[in-house]
Amino acid sequence: MKQFKIQRPDETIRRSIQNKIDNLNKPKGSLGVLEELAMQVCLIQQTLTPTLKSPCHLLLGGDHGIEREGVSISPREVTWQQMINFTRGGGGVNMFCRQHGFKLRIVDVGVDYDFSGIPGIIDRKIARGTRNFLYEPAMTNEEFDKAIETGADLVDECIAEGCQVICIGEMGIANTSPSSIWMSLFCDIPLNECIGAGAGLDKPGISHKCEVLNKAIANYQLSTINYQLSTINYQLSYFGGYEMITAIGAMLRAAEQHIVILIDGFIMTACALAACRLYPDAQHYMVFGHCGDESGHRRMLDAMNAKPILSLGLRLGEGTGALCAFPILDSAIRMLNEMNNFENGKITKYF
Amino acid sequence: MKQFKIQRPDETIRRSIQNKIDNLNKPKGSLGVLEELAMQVCLIQQTLTPTLKSPCHLLLGGDHGIEREGVSISPREVTWQQMINFTRGGGGVNMFCRQHGFKLRIVDVGVDYDFSGIPGIIDRKIARGTRNFLYEPAMTNEEFDKAIETGADLVDECIAEGCQVICIGEMGIANTSPSSIWMSLFCDIPLNECIGAGAGLDKPGISHKCEVLNKAIANYQLSTINYQLSTINYQLSYFGGYEMITAIGAMLRAAEQHIVILIDGFIMTACALAACRLYPDAQHYMVFGHCGDESGHRRMLDAMNAKPILSLGLRLGEGTGALCAFPILDSAIRMLNEMNNFENGKITKYF
Repeated sequence: MKQFKIQRPDETIRRSIQNKIDNLNKPKGSLGVLEELAMQVCLIQQTLTPTLKSPCHLLLGGDHGIEREGVSISPREVTWQQMINFTRGGGGVNMFCRQHGFKLRIVDVGVDYDFSGIPGIIDRKIARGTRNFLYEPAMTNEEFDKAIETGADLVDECIAEGCQVICIGEMGIANTSPSSIWMSLFCDIPLNECIGAGAGLDKPGISHKCEVLNKAIANYQLSTINYQLSTINYQLSYFGGYEMITAIGAMLRAAEQHIVILIDGFIMTACALAACRLYPDAQHYMVFGHCGDESGHRRMLDAMNAKPILSLGLRLGEGTGALCAFPILDSAIRMLNEMNNFENGKITKYF
Repeated sequence: MKQFKIQRPDETIRRSIQNKIDNLNKPKGSLGVLEELAMQVCLIQQTLTPTLKSPCHLLLGGDHGIEREGVSISPREVTWQQMINFTRGGGGVNMFCRQHGFKLRIVDVGVDYDFSGIPGIIDRKIARGTRNFLYEPAMTNEEFDKAIETGADLVDECIAEGCQVICIGEMGIANTSPSSIWMSLFCDIPLNECIGAGAGLDKPGISHKCEVLNKAIANYQLSTINYQLSTINYQLSYFGGYEMITAIGAMLRAAEQHIVILIDGFIMTACALAACRLYPDAQHYMVFGHCGDESGHRRMLDAMNAKPILSLGLRLGEGTGALCAFPILDSAIRMLNEMNNFENGKITKYF
């Protein structure tokens, strides 16, 4: 796997940042989370006047072999149909990208469909869907490496356009399944407590999903008996979707390059968790957009000690929750750049 | 007091709205709070294609006699200094109005300062600060009526410019004190549980504030023994600030005119509570922007069964928390107007 050089932002500047925040014309601490976000972005960019120029959204699409086991209420074809829908501007992700000025890149890294001749979809296809991890690893080591590199490449393209904040979303029917398994493995939480309704399973549907995923983990464990490779990489490639591994590569490259990363819901949080298991300092570059409605998301965020900006019961995916949180991050930056302090605002300082 | 004709929005259209929301190309219910907000705005505007044109922010300034008792960490002069600061664009409220396209009206309804010759402040001064409600009613009946009418007038001016969504903020040192008292009286919660740190009181400061406000309520209760007027109006005029009563008038007029009202933090929620005690159906027109960090705010929201959009630990006032929530409301509207449904998105409907 490609290696990354990810370091915690230099803390030397922290005191100056705090001093600037505390001298803005407001009661100390009264802008709450905005002040924390401002601190984080200042540290990432090593400046007292941060900016969030050229925001980019990577929408990564991929299909999952495990979908064949009936673990999702949505049929597989919804992945490619939605990818095409996104090119026409009518999806959830489109409207929020327009609203907040994000440039949207729709990237096929593993959708089970031939998009030839359809404009607006970037072709980085690794394969037409992963293998079914109930029986075998979802992808090969080579595919895993390729997905990581694809993610890094996509971020480099954004950076070349001046991007300072990146949001990552996914489209992949059945991808809550690998996310639940990663959550269970990385957080050491019993699998059934990590499994939720996804796009809308009923109780029997969730029971079936639990049964399938428990069997898959049992088979995986058998396969590891004689397996010598780094465990985390094997866990990632065994269960991951191409869009998920690509997202991990994108997050790691963004962290390496000091780009602010907006993290979306359950699936993208599972990818963030994986990225931080590989490189713990990557988390300093992550802003968690929201706590979603998928069962387990709150617990996964807690396990990461991550404080999401929003909690609006969203569970659409595509990066929509992270995009909805962007204006709050923008507000934090504006606070630093536009608000007077007590002196130039000519306000009596009372503390 | 001026009377308002406030009616619950006609529910006949609810089914059509729900049908439209459920057919957008997303898992049913997966946009959570956005779907609830979309429903509310559709009901208010009685349409399936709502808009939020010409958003206006009323920043109402007033001083409080009770400030003389040392109930706030900030000195009184901060009210007028901040009002002038707002005219220069450097306050918290300014940057968020710019960010979200709100037209800001800075209105003096009771600041203890002569703003003559200072451009950018609308003069609707009722008096230079209220009386000290530790000893006497904060305002007369005539002043109360004038404040209510001022609020209604200000909203009419916004509506004349095409405004469909209004946000109201306040600047008034010591105004958490009357807010706590209203909360206690209207929600029947012990006064000390309604009192918080305001702009940043320490523990002894909060104890002193509790002592003063308990004395004030005791004196008020003595004064009511021979008092025959409608109790709620007396409670409002006895403790209220001019900016608070003006806000109530503005909220009631906005509700009467089917304008969406964005409610800010502790003080504006106390005003919303008062408005809904006068006209319960006014609440259908209110969107609660955030749960702030002032002790008691969550409990007051719960007492109103109000679900705030954000919870970011904000306690700046000025309407800043409500403004920060605006893009979420905007997202809800965009969902209705911009998102494809299963049919025109060409997505297999799976439920």
